[in-house]
Amino acid sequence: MEDVQQRADHRGVALDKAGVTGLRYPIVVLDRSRTQQHTVATVTMSVSVPHHFKGTHMSRFIEVLEEHRDDVNMWALPTIIARLRERLDAESARIEMTFPYFLERPAPVTGATGLMDYDCTFIGESSEAGADDFVLRVVVPVTSLCPCSKAISDYGAHNQRGHVTLEVRSAWTDDDPDFIWIEELIEVGESAAACRLYPLLKRPDERYVTMEAYDNPVFVEDMVRNAAVALKEDPRVRWFRVHAVNFESIHNHNAFAEVVWERPS
Amino acid sequence: MEDVQQRADHRGVALDKAGVTGLRYPIVVLDRSRTQQHTVATVTMSVSVPHHFKGTHMSRFIEVLEEHRDDVNMWALPTIIARLRERLDAESARIEMTFPYFLERPAPVTGATGLMDYDCTFIGESSEAGADDFVLRVVVPVTSLCPCSKAISDYGAHNQRGHVTLEVRSAWTDDDPDFIWIEELIEVGESAAACRLYPLLKRPDERYVTMEAYDNPVFVEDMVRNAAVALKEDPRVRWFRVHAVNFESIHNHNAFAEVVWERPS
Amino acid sequence: MEDVQQRADHRGVALDKAGVTGLRYPIVVLDRSRTQQHTVATVTMSVSVPHHFKGTHMSRFIEVLEEHRDDVNMWALPTIIARLRERLDAESARIEMTFPYFLERPAPVTGATGLMDYDCTFIGESSEAGADDFVLRVVVPVTSLCPCSKAISDYGAHNQRGHVTLEVRSAWTDDDPDFIWIEELIEVGESAAACRLYPLLKRPDERYVTMEAYDNPVFVEDMVRNAAVALKEDPRVRWFRVHAVNFESIHNHNAFAEVVWERPS
Amino acid sequence: MEDVQQRADHRGVALDKAGVTGLRYPIVVLDRSRTQQHTVATVTMSVSVPHHFKGTHMSRFIEVLEEHRDDVNMWALPTIIARLRERLDAESARIEMTFPYFLERPAPVTGATGLMDYDCTFIGESSEAGADDFVLRVVVPVTSLCPCSKAISDYGAHNQRGHVTLEVRSAWTDDDPDFIWIEELIEVGESAAACRLYPLLKRPDERYVTMEAYDNPVFVEDMVRNAAVALKEDPRVRWFRVHAVNFESIHNHNAFAEVVWERPS
Repeated sequence: MEDVQQRADHRGVALDKAGVTGLRYPIVVLDRSRTQQHTVATVTMSVSVPHHFKGTHMSRFIEVLEEHRDDVNMWALPTIIARLRERLDAESARIEMTFPYFLERPAPVTGATGLMDYDCTFIGESSEAGADDFVLRVVVPVTSLCPCSKAISDYGAHNQRGHVTLEVRSAWTDDDPDFIWIEELIEVGESAAACRLYPLLKRPDERYVTMEAYDNPVFVEDMVRNAAVALKEDPRVRWFRVHAVNFESIHNHNAFAEVVWERPS
Repeated sequence: MEDVQQRADHRGVALDKAGVTGLRYPIVVLDRSRTQQHTVATVTMSVSVPHHFKGTHMSRFIEVLEEHRDDVNMWALPTIIARLRERLDAESARIEMTFPYFLERPAPVTGATGLMDYDCTFIGESSEAGADDFVLRVVVPVTSLCPCSKAISDYGAHNQRGHVTLEVRSAWTDDDPDFIWIEELIEVGESAAACRLYPLLKRPDERYVTMEAYDNPVFVEDMVRNAAVALKEDPRVRWFRVHAVNFESIHNHNAFAEVVWERPS
Repeated sequence: MEDVQQRADHRGVALDKAGVTGLRYPIVVLDRSRTQQHTVATVTMSVSVPHHFKGTHMSRFIEVLEEHRDDVNMWALPTIIARLRERLDAESARIEMTFPYFLERPAPVTGATGLMDYDCTFIGESSEAGADDFVLRVVVPVTSLCPCSKAISDYGAHNQRGHVTLEVRSAWTDDDPDFIWIEELIEVGESAAACRLYPLLKRPDERYVTMEAYDNPVFVEDMVRNAAVALKEDPRVRWFRVHAVNFESIHNHNAFAEVVWERPS
Repeated sequence: MEDVQQRADHRGVALDKAGVTGLRYPIVVLDRSRTQQHTVATVTMSVSVPHHFKGTHMSRFIEVLEEHRDDVNMWALPTIIARLRERLDAESARIEMTFPYFLERPAPVTGATGLMDYDCTFIGESSEAGADDFVLRVVVPVTSLCPCSKAISDYGAHNQRGHVTLEVRSAWTDDDPDFIWIEELIEVGESAAACRLYPLLKRPDERYVTMEAYDNPVFVEDMVRNAAVALKEDPRVRWFRVHAVNFESIHNHNAFAEVVWERPS
């Protein structure tokens, strides 16, 4: 059978990316305490395609993933990407994996525990030229409480769920001193807000978070700035984007703020 | 060319519905003040298929919609459905149209105006047997504020955006005294909550809604019950489902409540 | 601290459901070969609320889930629901868990294996009156190929991805002879289509599925009827809903069909 | 009442963006034939915030939009953005509006007409430094048909719906000769595919599109390259991103390709 993808192409357009997307796959993630966590990722995998080849071989992406079936995780990511480049004879390869990640979280007063979920993404890229790149993205759901509403009202203050999304460029593997854990970004995001979220709150806990949020009002701009200050102070961070959005309790639209930063070299 | 859909079928399975879904179409809706409102609907259209026909003619759904292009609205719905039954030679036909609907809403203190958006759905059905049916669904976004959080805390109370969804079976056309306007269901939903939402709030308005919500705490269960009481008292309502959900500001999951009711005959 | 939820309510509205929704939780599912499969569910849990209580205790839903943390699966569902009824002092309780489920699937010619994902839902309900109910829902992605397009064209035929959704009311636990496995519903859905989907296809496999689909054209109505016939013939099935949708390759809208059936008693 | 947003900020973090998102608003778009088209946009509006201000005034975004209520369209965008910068005393402002856009499309043989919908986005940005920028994004749904499947099979070929997304940086207003119409990008996207989509196809039309797609097989890589070649040849295009995705009929995941290009200066 003819290998149509290998036909010559004369349009002179090299592609930045060709690959598969929307692929769901069970993965195992190590958490900071080195415990294994089973979860399910949505995966995008691509390679660059030089201008003279008609197409890439989509089935090989799945084959490479299958070769590592019991070992699809952040630590294996550099190996999987190197293997992709080799199998697809490509200059560069890229993998993006988004998955829910769970942390046991004790309630602030009673200590009653439950599991909090966070959407995390690993984005790894590697090229022939030796330019390896790793970005960790974590979406941290939080409580925000409006400083203006508190200041101008005799009582009460509008508050709501918000998402602080942190994307950080740092080291890829945990034997590198510049490696950053998911748990560390969650801590940065939660510390930037009015109050963290909990899966399980008994009445003494609900009293605590209600007053904690009221005592720490933040605009969406404040959450971005608080997180930015913390990330700038961390020498392991080479680049970040912080985006925060509040699902406003007083409007049917949302408020957001964003900053992108690169450490001067 | 053969009409494959008209082939005989021997599996003995009559279908409740066969048709098109996920179709976007510009429509014109009349609001209560009889002003035309242009919006875009997502449409599902279907007919029943007797057991002896292999399939329905999907293109005819689009043809019938096109015949009424400048007249796709609630008032034309009975005509469009009757035409569907005729063109597709079907015992029953059904149309569901979901669209954003806008109301001008003045802020509570300054009167500054903006447009609030509500997701609305018309569900119309008609059958040979004469059983016509019309359900109006309106999703009303609101503020809710937790009575428990307020009662147990020295200050503050967690609040959040919530959705009160009202589905009501009533009259289909506005020359029937049992006809119910979208605006009436919005009023029921907003009155059931701690405070209504506004598109535009200046500082005096923000102060007002902050204290208004604090003064009217409601659980998600309360919002459902408040709406249910109002709908039961309205003799035009023959059946309703009320569903409310709060996008909790203190959790990463939501709280909800629901009740379905039919007027005893 | 006052238990606000326990306050008396005088509106006279009993609620069908009050609870939590949109909760993500890691679960373990047994597959037909009795192997454990780790996945992540999105969970809805509710209880009925009698008219004289103001509200339910939302935190107890999470507590009950936490009590069963290492054991959240279909087999534990009856226990978890019974525990919910007890802890919340409710007449009826209901749990709905939706999760991706993976099966190893060999390619039809080369036998190259990969993991196929299916969205599955367990819906369990239990009431004081002894009315227990279990519905299994499986969304089976398939290939459909249009019989009309094939019949009227000199070559080719439009085809597309479709979803066959099967909901079946049957026995709840696998020591009951009426129990139905997820794998059995997947088989029904895939057999009803033009061709099944595969995660990994090499060229001989791609040739196979291309011609297999062309040899077995089906309308969306056919997929529903084929599945309906198979389910009616299975004496374990007491009730079903079959819904199929084709993401038409020649339109920007979808075609669908649906049938609901109950075994005459 | 205190203007909390105007408080001094000492964290030294200037924000790239602060504003509102997820706002729905009815808009009027002019099509190429200068006919008005009513549709509904989802809007994001933001300004930059210097490091010394605590926050921006979110209500002013809505006020500026309201000032232009009857005139929210691409032609008014430069005016609205300039007004945003002025009202919010900001160095730069940005608006992004995404909306469904409809074109009447005659079927290829019978000429039967219907409305095709396309998701379009206007992204306008303006800064004190005089750097104005406009990007037009159009998502063009198409049919793709796999050249490999056709080449290796005795008959048939898998095909599916795909999306070709074109983002182009060009002139902002239609009195500039470099202005590009939505209709032109739709034409580029549809010409790059195996066959265009139609809202309404009678049997002779369905025969036509079936064979047309079979006669013009394209990989997802081909669609990107075909569109890229067309855009490079158009001197009005200063920059583009082309992304194509196929909702594979033989897999439960998608195939995609992408290229970004800037005209050398």
